[in-house]
Amino acid sequence: MNEGEKLITTTNPLTGATSVTEVKETTPGEVDALAKKAQDATARLANVGREGRASLLDAIADSFETGRELLVRTADEETGLGPKRLNGELTRSVFQFRLFAEALREGSYLEAMIDHAGETPLGAAPDLRRMLLPIGPVAVFGASNFPFAFSVAGGDTASALAAGCPVVVKAHDSHPLTSLRSLEAIVEAVAAQGIPEGTIGMVFGQDAAGQLIEHPAIKAVSFTGSLATGRLLLEMVNRRPDPIPFFGELSSLNPLVVTAGAAKARTVEIANGLFASFTGSGGQLCTKPGVAFVPEGPDGDQLVDILRDLTVRGAGHVLLNQRIAESFETIAGRLVAKGASVEGRGETNESEAGFVVAPTLLTTTASDLSADLTEECFGPLLVVARYVATSDLHQAFQQIPPSLTATIHAEDDEVERFAELFDALEPSVGRIVYNSFPTGVRVSWAQHHGGPWPSTNSQHSSVGVTSIRRFLRPFVWQDAPSTVLPAELRDGYSAISRRVDGKMIMPPEMATSTLN
Amino acid sequence: MNEGEKLITTTNPLTGATSVTEVKETTPGEVDALAKKAQDATARLANVGREGRASLLDAIADSFETGRELLVRTADEETGLGPKRLNGELTRSVFQFRLFAEALREGSYLEAMIDHAGETPLGAAPDLRRMLLPIGPVAVFGASNFPFAFSVAGGDTASALAAGCPVVVKAHDSHPLTSLRSLEAIVEAVAAQGIPEGTIGMVFGQDAAGQLIEHPAIKAVSFTGSLATGRLLLEMVNRRPDPIPFFGELSSLNPLVVTAGAAKARTVEIANGLFASFTGSGGQLCTKPGVAFVPEGPDGDQLVDILRDLTVRGAGHVLLNQRIAESFETIAGRLVAKGASVEGRGETNESEAGFVVAPTLLTTTASDLSADLTEECFGPLLVVARYVATSDLHQAFQQIPPSLTATIHAEDDEVERFAELFDALEPSVGRIVYNSFPTGVRVSWAQHHGGPWPSTNSQHSSVGVTSIRRFLRPFVWQDAPSTVLPAELRDGYSAISRRVDGKMIMPPEMATSTLN
Repeated sequence: MNEGEKLITTTNPLTGATSVTEVKETTPGEVDALAKKAQDATARLANVGREGRASLLDAIADSFETGRELLVRTADEETGLGPKRLNGELTRSVFQFRLFAEALREGSYLEAMIDHAGETPLGAAPDLRRMLLPIGPVAVFGASNFPFAFSVAGGDTASALAAGCPVVVKAHDSHPLTSLRSLEAIVEAVAAQGIPEGTIGMVFGQDAAGQLIEHPAIKAVSFTGSLATGRLLLEMVNRRPDPIPFFGELSSLNPLVVTAGAAKARTVEIANGLFASFTGSGGQLCTKPGVAFVPEGPDGDQLVDILRDLTVRGAGHVLLNQRIAESFETIAGRLVAKGASVEGRGETNESEAGFVVAPTLLTTTASDLSADLTEECFGPLLVVARYVATSDLHQAFQQIPPSLTATIHAEDDEVERFAELFDALEPSVGRIVYNSFPTGVRVSWAQHHGGPWPSTNSQHSSVGVTSIRRFLRPFVWQDAPSTVLPAELRDGYSAISRRVDGKMIMPPEMATSTLN
Repeated sequence: MNEGEKLITTTNPLTGATSVTEVKETTPGEVDALAKKAQDATARLANVGREGRASLLDAIADSFETGRELLVRTADEETGLGPKRLNGELTRSVFQFRLFAEALREGSYLEAMIDHAGETPLGAAPDLRRMLLPIGPVAVFGASNFPFAFSVAGGDTASALAAGCPVVVKAHDSHPLTSLRSLEAIVEAVAAQGIPEGTIGMVFGQDAAGQLIEHPAIKAVSFTGSLATGRLLLEMVNRRPDPIPFFGELSSLNPLVVTAGAAKARTVEIANGLFASFTGSGGQLCTKPGVAFVPEGPDGDQLVDILRDLTVRGAGHVLLNQRIAESFETIAGRLVAKGASVEGRGETNESEAGFVVAPTLLTTTASDLSADLTEECFGPLLVVARYVATSDLHQAFQQIPPSLTATIHAEDDEVERFAELFDALEPSVGRIVYNSFPTGVRVSWAQHHGGPWPSTNSQHSSVGVTSIRRFLRPFVWQDAPSTVLPAELRDGYSAISRRVDGKMIMPPEMATSTLN
């Protein structure tokens, strides 16, 4: 090992034991080389075409399946999330790569459009052909709480590669070995498919992260993590000579409202579901409901009683790392200091060496819900705010920063209540969930995972097929000879949906099927 | 007039004469009131629906036609662009409003998607229904060089209103009365359609502009103007507690390349077209070619000779305002000081009082083309860079900041040259024009007007139907009762194209037409 090199350590959150890994912090020279390799790979990865990249994504999915046992074991040692959750998460990652391969083959994500030359009310107009192209190398910041689905093997990597963008991942220091094993699985698939090596790279360490964001070869940044770090990264991006798109998913309180009708009709069901939703994965989910509005009165009382019983009987949760566990205690303490009451707290075995915290239920009222009480607390904590009338809610909602989701529990005969709550919540969230819970994000075509700042930047999704759009940019060929056009923009091409002279044209087999 | 109120002045660039107008700078209290009125109008404007907003856009187009004579006369007095250009520009604005009305009626801009509930490889999944919603009130900054098409009556206003977003325009101080007359035309249409008054507002003055950007009700900013001002506005946006999307179109050099084959085959045609393109509208177009690469040798010499003759014989151009005229002289002087040679310069009648500058042709070589020589000079100036081999070009391209467009003039038998130039230029522009000129931007479905920073932010267009996407955000209803869903997301709705369970479904009449 050369002088000045720093080895990366890994810590088992179950025991608190730290050990030195085989990986070291990436040096400035290495960051530069990785970014340049990514840049060099850009044109070649684009030229592989949709089918070539779809095959790559399928091969990466296969590679994760092959390495499943080692990946899950490594991730469990570094995150304490347990084999069941981690196996499910890896399955989600694998599914995601395959879904994006399907989207590439289907091809309408290209938004191909042709306006033929012709006379218009504004005079003779040229031939324009538009489609989306890869934006260029993407810096992907892995998240602590999803060692697979929002890390090296995650949606950002999958969507960037689908778009045709090489990826340089910043490995999260909470799971360096999981990151390394995941990278190896991708590298293997890349090599087997004959795809340029610079398609995937990885850096370790905070300094390397900063250098990566500043590197001229990097054309977009995606980050899932804390608001404070996200804000720092955004400032770095905007200090570049060329500010580039920054896709941050930063903070989300995910308010949940239970109407009087729902509290009466589904008291036990809602209490059980809510407990599972705020404590699942140790409450370390971006869509964890952080505040729940429950009506005053006997039905609400009973709902809170059940929640409290579940909380008090609840086992301690091993959190991902020491920082998160300490921050949990700090913020929980602050919420109480600011006026929230401790309704219930589970047990922790104080003798345990790991990063264990107790599930915690706090209460307040909607009219007392100040901005101080809507600080996001990452971990198994829920603030229940009791309310008398719906009018209490409108004021309370103003105290909640915009979020990824909001949830409404209401009965069928409360249609007006539905509509009123929807109108109040819609402007500040990206998804509204009815009579269910916001955790457990479906990976599909129609999913949207985003919302106004600080949840994200409003306009893009970090989950689902549309997340690919983050890493694409429109491009137009004007009066181009057909030899220089991509196949998808030539006359007569009919394998994908396109808009031609303003009209959507479907591939013949799809158009036929809609008539059946 | 109250104490402290400042009246806005207007200047006729043909004479330099300044006069006081009836409008005054908007006070902080007025900015606040306008932004709040816009916020209050948001839900109501959305509820008007696609057909209601399409009718509004058509009514605005009609209103501009009704007011055409006054609008053009006012704009001519404030910009000196002349009735022919201004009539054409107003026609473009009118066309744009009508095209966006058509896009609203067609409805696929909503990107409606439905994933029905069901079993998936990841378990039981909920029902998700996604479409795009208005992002909220938009601050639109009018540009000096397009008193209609990029100002109050411009594409940003049209696309924001189409999206369902109320607009507060910052009037450009170069044409306050044109802005006021344009606003009046829109206000009239808004009132006649029974649309909320807060749908359109306007502020005057730099302080008001700053207050507008900082106002919490504003949810997106669009700006067309200088890089320096754009950078300032971006910083203000990012200092907000909630950074919001900023769509800036800032600076563009629009390189143009003439191959040896083209220089030989179309010497006169290219010289004439290039002269018209860099001097049209006084060279005050964002797509003006600012640098042209012409081969060394007799064909290139002849092309430059013709360009020089046209330039020397060219009349002076009245620029939009004193600042632009002074800046033109300053930058032209700087380019010469940095090593460009004056190849030719037209006449200006020095006795004229207005803001007149001479068309200017500078020359250098591709190998001498430093970053100093690629500073954008707004106005009728072109730098011709002579080159020997294509390899000279690659180095020279690196000196050019990313642009909206690039243009390639080449002959049919130069296919390889085409491809090589395309690959070199594509990463840093949003549109490549073949054998034509980048000015005269077609307004249509497939147009893209954008490129990497500093031309724009890469991912969005400020011209054409897709420009509406800037002011929309995705939103998902999960497991929602059909009563709370918008019509476009209910089962059985078939008036627009939608993606259902991953498959594009066309309205029956469209699907049929593709089979003919």
